[in-house]
Amino acid sequence: MDFPEVLTEARALVTPAMDAALVRLSPEIRRVIDYHMGWRDAEGRPVQRRGSKSVRPALAFLSARAGGGAAGDATAGAVTVEFLNNWAFLIDDVMDRDRYRRHRETAWVVFGEGQAICAGTALLTLAEQVLLECDSPHRLAALRLTLDTSAMMLAGQTLDMTFEQRLDFTVDESMTMTRSKTASLMRCATSIGAILVGAPEDVVDALEEFGQCLGVAFQARDDMLGIWGISDQTGGRPPGFDLKARKGTLPIAVALRDERCGSELRDLLSAHQELPDADVARAADLVAAAGGREWTDDLARRMVMQATKAIDRLDLADDVRGHFEHLAAMGLPDDVA
Amino acid sequence: MDFPEVLTEARALVTPAMDAALVRLSPEIRRVIDYHMGWRDAEGRPVQRRGSKSVRPALAFLSARAGGGAAGDATAGAVTVEFLNNWAFLIDDVMDRDRYRRHRETAWVVFGEGQAICAGTALLTLAEQVLLECDSPHRLAALRLTLDTSAMMLAGQTLDMTFEQRLDFTVDESMTMTRSKTASLMRCATSIGAILVGAPEDVVDALEEFGQCLGVAFQARDDMLGIWGISDQTGGRPPGFDLKARKGTLPIAVALRDERCGSELRDLLSAHQELPDADVARAADLVAAAGGREWTDDLARRMVMQATKAIDRLDLADDVRGHFEHLAAMGLPDDVA
Repeated sequence: MDFPEVLTEARALVTPAMDAALVRLSPEIRRVIDYHMGWRDAEGRPVQRRGSKSVRPALAFLSARAGGGAAGDATAGAVTVEFLNNWAFLIDDVMDRDRYRRHRETAWVVFGEGQAICAGTALLTLAEQVLLECDSPHRLAALRLTLDTSAMMLAGQTLDMTFEQRLDFTVDESMTMTRSKTASLMRCATSIGAILVGAPEDVVDALEEFGQCLGVAFQARDDMLGIWGISDQTGGRPPGFDLKARKGTLPIAVALRDERCGSELRDLLSAHQELPDADVARAADLVAAAGGREWTDDLARRMVMQATKAIDRLDLADDVRGHFEHLAAMGLPDDVA
Repeated sequence: MDFPEVLTEARALVTPAMDAALVRLSPEIRRVIDYHMGWRDAEGRPVQRRGSKSVRPALAFLSARAGGGAAGDATAGAVTVEFLNNWAFLIDDVMDRDRYRRHRETAWVVFGEGQAICAGTALLTLAEQVLLECDSPHRLAALRLTLDTSAMMLAGQTLDMTFEQRLDFTVDESMTMTRSKTASLMRCATSIGAILVGAPEDVVDALEEFGQCLGVAFQARDDMLGIWGISDQTGGRPPGFDLKARKGTLPIAVALRDERCGSELRDLLSAHQELPDADVARAADLVAAAGGREWTDDLARRMVMQATKAIDRLDLADDVRGHFEHLAAMGLPDDVA
């Protein structure tokens, strides 16, 4: 099984378990979820399923194997992280006013904000129900981790929103936001499987460190795509959308602390409620000139390296280690234009 | 201890437990909660605490006593229902565009929609953490009930939002919404204490029926206030706000099925995005003429009676029964102008 197969296999394992859980939702919530997941169109007609890459479920399955169990022991954990990830997508899209995801209109654009938020929150609740009802004797520890994770994600999203109202956030604040909003879920994915199979504490600790570092790397790479990505890489979002939306991402935070470029960037970003297309290229150049691009690229690479080191401590089957390393390499910003 | 004291005492018991839980929230989320609860102003300065009437915590404490335990055994349950209730307030206010609650601007008006939604959802997560960590050997059954309750509340809120887009909802649909959106939380409040103390199934069943009926009665009364209530009773909302917002409440659903008044009402409600003040009185008269007021008033009374009957089956201490009956009487629409 080479690299993409680990994702294909994860999706094949997690999808029926998700389907089994989703039957509990009301028809009104279900239609929003089915659209958001890429399973049905806005009118409820089935479409060729696309959906997510299933990175987080794949990590959850590998985590169970790293903890000495079988992939299937982490099914409830894989469903949980996939539901949490989609909860975050659904509510973040509303709050960030993002109109496109995976090359389709976002759920709130199609169904309204309230519907998208309730549907997202229903996934959060459903994730906890799935965990509470699974047959692992360690399910309560996994549930505790999940609740901590969702609390951190909410704190991170809230902090993120405060950034949009001010242009004085620091790199430290942006790192705190990155850790709580994104890395916490990746850490949950890389450790929940091991927790469900009752792995020893040092194994869980190493897997948590792996996920935490990987999460920061993924976000750093995403932050670069939010400025320099092309539409193909960003699910159809306009170029420079993080600049347009004045997001508190890492490269922007780094650039804002630069004396010369930072003040020009601040002037540019604060001149309009939304940065006009004509100014996006100039703002992106300022971020690069201030070193924001290099700093973020370097962070992503260091984090992938630290993640890999964390699992070097573990006694893993060769294929598990190989898959972990392949997935970690997805955090490298090599393909940013 | 006469009637208002049961609420005062409940608040005295639940408030320190809420405070102890809330320290886990991030400062950004905490300021939204403290404002919403009526503990601090928009700038974060402490104000004379007002907050909720604490009906649901009081029911949770009484529920523990009805199940053979002490009030204090239900502290985590009381915190849970109070957090769930405030979660619902925070998100419903955003979705219904309600600008006033408890005679103050709502949290989303002050802090923005995203902040209010994250803060509300943080209360939901925190409620589950409090339950999972409490020391009752029956905490998992209580957690299961709480997850079912939040899932039902989300289904109800979602159904409610679909009503606003159409004026063809039936009385059955409005009842389904009432049961899932409001009554489910009341049922949780009246049974969670008994569950936490390990009461026998027939006791829990009777308390659930009590709460379910009481919840429908409270909502029916609220539906009447949403049309005929005066500002003092509705926390500062404008008169007839449910008509203005085209809510799918019970009296409106009943009126819409009336051949003559229903069609005039439908024309009036659909003529504008928001009903002008001048037409509110006419719309309210149409609802009354169609029998919507009488029907809803009658429902509230029957539900209070059925609730009282449900607990008649139980062997309760006199003071517990008396408090339950007093709280149930709050569902009677006697004071609707």
